[in-house]
Amino acid sequence: MPEAAKRPTRGDGTSTGPVLGRGLQILGAFDASRPAMTLSEIARHTGIPVSTVHRLLGALMEWGALERADDGSYRIGLRLWEIGSLAPRSQALRDRALPFLEDLCQVSRENVQLAVREGAELVFVERIAGTGAVPVLTRVGGRFALTSTGVGLVLLAHAPPEVQEEVLAGPVEALTPFTVTDPVRLRAMLADTRTRGFAVSDRQVTDDALSVAAPVHDRAGAVVAAVSLVVHAGSVPSQQLATPVRTTARAISRALGAP
Amino acid sequence: MPEAAKRPTRGDGTSTGPVLGRGLQILGAFDASRPAMTLSEIARHTGIPVSTVHRLLGALMEWGALERADDGSYRIGLRLWEIGSLAPRSQALRDRALPFLEDLCQVSRENVQLAVREGAELVFVERIAGTGAVPVLTRVGGRFALTSTGVGLVLLAHAPPEVQEEVLAGPVEALTPFTVTDPVRLRAMLADTRTRGFAVSDRQVTDDALSVAAPVHDRAGAVVAAVSLVVHAGSVPSQQLATPVRTTARAISRALGAP
Repeated sequence: MPEAAKRPTRGDGTSTGPVLGRGLQILGAFDASRPAMTLSEIARHTGIPVSTVHRLLGALMEWGALERADDGSYRIGLRLWEIGSLAPRSQALRDRALPFLEDLCQVSRENVQLAVREGAELVFVERIAGTGAVPVLTRVGGRFALTSTGVGLVLLAHAPPEVQEEVLAGPVEALTPFTVTDPVRLRAMLADTRTRGFAVSDRQVTDDALSVAAPVHDRAGAVVAAVSLVVHAGSVPSQQLATPVRTTARAISRALGAP
Repeated sequence: MPEAAKRPTRGDGTSTGPVLGRGLQILGAFDASRPAMTLSEIARHTGIPVSTVHRLLGALMEWGALERADDGSYRIGLRLWEIGSLAPRSQALRDRALPFLEDLCQVSRENVQLAVREGAELVFVERIAGTGAVPVLTRVGGRFALTSTGVGLVLLAHAPPEVQEEVLAGPVEALTPFTVTDPVRLRAMLADTRTRGFAVSDRQVTDDALSVAAPVHDRAGAVVAAVSLVVHAGSVPSQQLATPVRTTARAISRALGAP
């Protein structure tokens, strides 16, 4: 038996876990800052012995989860993206939402974003940049804290209580001098978001951007995503942005079968 | 040891392969026609015993490769899409190309598509539908034959000779009465595509659509993708579409660092 099967992986108690778990651990070692890695870098980042990594890479390459670049480094393969595209909460949602996001982007000529909650963080599912839009920190497929961004505040405002408590228990990272980190003020912002139907993040992520976000509902009425418009802070009153953003969020909700 | 580790999976000779291979086999059982499956459906489609599937699902769920829907069925998880988004040939390419694809879509108000070759097939990386655009069969993340579509003809025309021979050895599926299935005629079309710098697919996929496609080059000059415009057949002469499509393809190539 391979040595990988003999040693249990941390936090994995299933009998089939070690080998599969280690294969998945290798995939999970890739991120936006490490889109390509050599064999030894993968071993270092995962803590899995080089000889085991080498064997697992063979199976991952054969299936198409990884590909080898001309320089010999490994990178995520097209097939993993193809299978990942079947995730209902990413590509399917994005495909339904895209026409409405494009309308909002064309009319506003600003950044339009779509995000979903994953645990106590959010993941950007789509981002369209209008002509001359303010620079933003987001990347499609990238993660972000639920505090600070407009979409994050919407998703957090409608998250289960235990998620809200976990996030509010902190610490909340201050990205700018304007980031609200005080749990009491954050709680008030979440209540406002639920009452008004939209969230405002004023220079809380970068000190020149303001975002206004609204919730997207599914057919059961649950909040499954948030859409936002990000503009230069001070260029437009946030109240004026709320109407187009809420209208877009409702159009997407309707496309998802919301009543 | 788990039973999964004892039996070799078909076509997998590596010592770590069986368990990891079976985990990947489960992921690969999902496709556009089967985006959600129950435990027993997964066992049936993979040929893996239910008890083994059950254990593997635990590890796949723990990592986030799969999620469980309210009805108890399994579906692809958001995390798999996140990691898949790191594939240089999908999300990164698409992010670079999107502004140019949007420009082409807005000016033409037709379907704009971006595809890459994967072996002897193509995968659609992006598709934007213009207002009132002709219905097309494509889906982002979906596969298609390299024959018949405009993007496919471009990718095939610039594929390694062994891929061309494999595809031309057939059989080539006829989707409409206009689909070119004769290898001699296909070979001539591929030569034309290389000479003219664009491909035309006239009602070869659906009997009311015409597509014109052009190659996207990377910094090394290799053809890494193809972009196309799909319009109602007979509405515009294909020669007239070639200029905007080739211009867009060149703009994307330039964004990728092509000379």
